[in-house]
Amino acid sequence: MLDTSWLVLNGTILFEIIGTLAFALSGLIEAARKKLDLVGMAMVSGLAAFGGGTLRDILLDRRPFFWIENDIWVWVLLFICFGALAFMRSRHLEPTARAMQWPDAIGLGAFTAGGTQLALNAGVQPIIAVIMGVLSAIFGGVLRDIVVNEIPKAFSDHIPYSVIAFSGAWVVVGLDALGAEAFVAVAVAAVFTIGLRVMALLLGWRLPIWKV
Amino acid sequence: MLDTSWLVLNGTILFEIIGTLAFALSGLIEAARKKLDLVGMAMVSGLAAFGGGTLRDILLDRRPFFWIENDIWVWVLLFICFGALAFMRSRHLEPTARAMQWPDAIGLGAFTAGGTQLALNAGVQPIIAVIMGVLSAIFGGVLRDIVVNEIPKAFSDHIPYSVIAFSGAWVVVGLDALGAEAFVAVAVAAVFTIGLRVMALLLGWRLPIWKV
Amino acid sequence: MLDTSWLVLNGTILFEIIGTLAFALSGLIEAARKKLDLVGMAMVSGLAAFGGGTLRDILLDRRPFFWIENDIWVWVLLFICFGALAFMRSRHLEPTARAMQWPDAIGLGAFTAGGTQLALNAGVQPIIAVIMGVLSAIFGGVLRDIVVNEIPKAFSDHIPYSVIAFSGAWVVVGLDALGAEAFVAVAVAAVFTIGLRVMALLLGWRLPIWKV
Repeated sequence: MLDTSWLVLNGTILFEIIGTLAFALSGLIEAARKKLDLVGMAMVSGLAAFGGGTLRDILLDRRPFFWIENDIWVWVLLFICFGALAFMRSRHLEPTARAMQWPDAIGLGAFTAGGTQLALNAGVQPIIAVIMGVLSAIFGGVLRDIVVNEIPKAFSDHIPYSVIAFSGAWVVVGLDALGAEAFVAVAVAAVFTIGLRVMALLLGWRLPIWKV
Repeated sequence: MLDTSWLVLNGTILFEIIGTLAFALSGLIEAARKKLDLVGMAMVSGLAAFGGGTLRDILLDRRPFFWIENDIWVWVLLFICFGALAFMRSRHLEPTARAMQWPDAIGLGAFTAGGTQLALNAGVQPIIAVIMGVLSAIFGGVLRDIVVNEIPKAFSDHIPYSVIAFSGAWVVVGLDALGAEAFVAVAVAAVFTIGLRVMALLLGWRLPIWKV
Repeated sequence: MLDTSWLVLNGTILFEIIGTLAFALSGLIEAARKKLDLVGMAMVSGLAAFGGGTLRDILLDRRPFFWIENDIWVWVLLFICFGALAFMRSRHLEPTARAMQWPDAIGLGAFTAGGTQLALNAGVQPIIAVIMGVLSAIFGGVLRDIVVNEIPKAFSDHIPYSVIAFSGAWVVVGLDALGAEAFVAVAVAAVFTIGLRVMALLLGWRLPIWKV
C-alpha cells in the first residue's frame, strides 16, 4: 500500500520506482549471466533493488523498512522474475543491460537525493547524510556483485558512479543549508545527479587511474 | 538459558535444535573443505547456524537475538567445532555432508514455519511474512557460501530448497487466515515443508532450467 | 565531535584511534592491490575501519553508531584515501602492509577489550560479550576480504589473531567478575591482547593444522 502523504512529501516517487525497477533488472541480468535458478534470480534482484535502502534504514535506525511497509514492491519483483524466466533469453541480456543504464541513472539520482534528505531529517551531520545518500544508491549493486562472487563494479570499473552520487548528495546538503524546502532540494539534487551520470555515460568519463 | 514459556509456545523447539545443529555442521564441513583454521570453522559454523535467524530479527527489529538471549547455543557451537577438529578427517566430509541432508530438511521446515509465524505476530503483510520465513531458513547457508567465496548453493544448484520453504511459509499464512492456532499452523507447515524437501531429495526433483 | 566523557570513561581512546587508522590502511592497501578505483578504496577502507564496530552496535542494538556520532572519523578516512591516491605507489604496498601489523595489533587489543566491556555493560552473558569483543576486532577485516572477493584471512591463514582476541576478551570478563573497574579491565585486557599478538608475530606462532 503506497502511502499518499509520503508520495506528496517525497515528490520523487516516480523516479524511485523507475530506479528500483532498473536496480531489480540489473540483479536479474546478473543472475541470468551466472545461470542462477529462479530463487537466485529473485534473491539477487531483491538484494539489488532493496539492499541500498535497507542498509540506509538499518544505519539510521528507521523502521519498518520501505519494502516491508509497502509490500507491493515484493509482488512486483516476483512478477518481474517470473516474466523474465518466461520471456528473457541470453541474446537479450547484453542489450537489456545496456538499456538499463538510463533508468539506472534515474535510480542513482532518486536514491542519492532521497537518502541524503532522509538522513538530514534524522539529524545527522552533513558528511554522514552524504554517505547515507551514496550508500542508498550504490549498496544494492554492491550486494548484488558480492553474492554472485564478483568484486563490486561500483568499486572497480573506474566509471564515475558513486562519485556522482557523492556530488549530488552535497547539492541536497547545500540547498538544505540555504533554507530550501526538502522537496525542492531533493528534486534539484536528483536532476543534477541524473544529468551528471548521463553526461558521464555519453562522454565516456573515467576516474583517475591509480598510479601504481 | 532456554526460556520455558517460549519452549511451550513454540512447540517446534526440538526441530529447531536439530536444524540449527545441521546448519552448524554444514558450515563446519564447508570450512573444512576450504581448509579454514579453527577460527574460520567456528565463524562459518556460527554464520550458517545463526545467520538466517539473526537477519530475520534485524529485519523485524526483534531484540535480543535468540543466540544472545540463549547463550547455550554459542557454547554448543564451540563444543562441536572442537570436537570436529579432534575427530573429523577429510574422509568423513562427504559422508557427513550427505548425512546432514536429513536434519537440514528438519531445520528448513522448522525455521521456515517459525520465522513466518514470528513475522505474522509482528503484524506484517503475508508476502513479507513468507519472505521472512524463507530468509530465516536459507540465509545462514547463503552467508556461509559467501564467506567461503562461493556463489550460494541455494541460488544456483537447481535443487528445490527455497521454493519449498516458500510453499511451506504460505501454509502458515493460510492456516493463520483460517483461524488456526499459531502452534498448530507452525507444526503443520513445518511437517509439510520437511515432507516436501524429503520427497525432493528422494525423487531427485529439479527446478526448471533457465532457457538461455 | 569527540565526546569527552566517553574519552575519559574509555581510557583506551588513543589505542582505538591508532587501531582504526591501521584497519583503514589495511583496507586501502587491499583495495590498491586489487586496483580498485578511488571509490573502492574509500569504501573498502571504511568497511575495514568501521565494519567491526558497526556490527557490534547492530548486534547490541546501540545507536547511533560511533562513526555516525563522531563524523570526524569519516573525514579522516576520506583524507587518508586522497593522500594515498596522491602519494602511494605499488612499491609502497608490501612495506606498508608489513608496517601496519604493529598498529593493527594495537587495534586488535583496543577493539577486543572495548567491545567486550560495552557488551558486558549491555548486560549480556560472558560468552556473548566475548563474541562481541572478537567480532568488533575482526569483522572489519572479514568484510574487507569478502568485498574484494577473498576468503577472510582471519579464517584461513592459521596465524593466531581471533584466538588472541578471544583470550583477551576473557581477561575483561575475568577482571570484571573480580570487581575491577571497567576502565582497568579494558586497559589490562588491551595490553594483554596486544602483547600476545606481538609475541605471535615475533615468534611465528601458528594455529594447529586441520588434520585432514
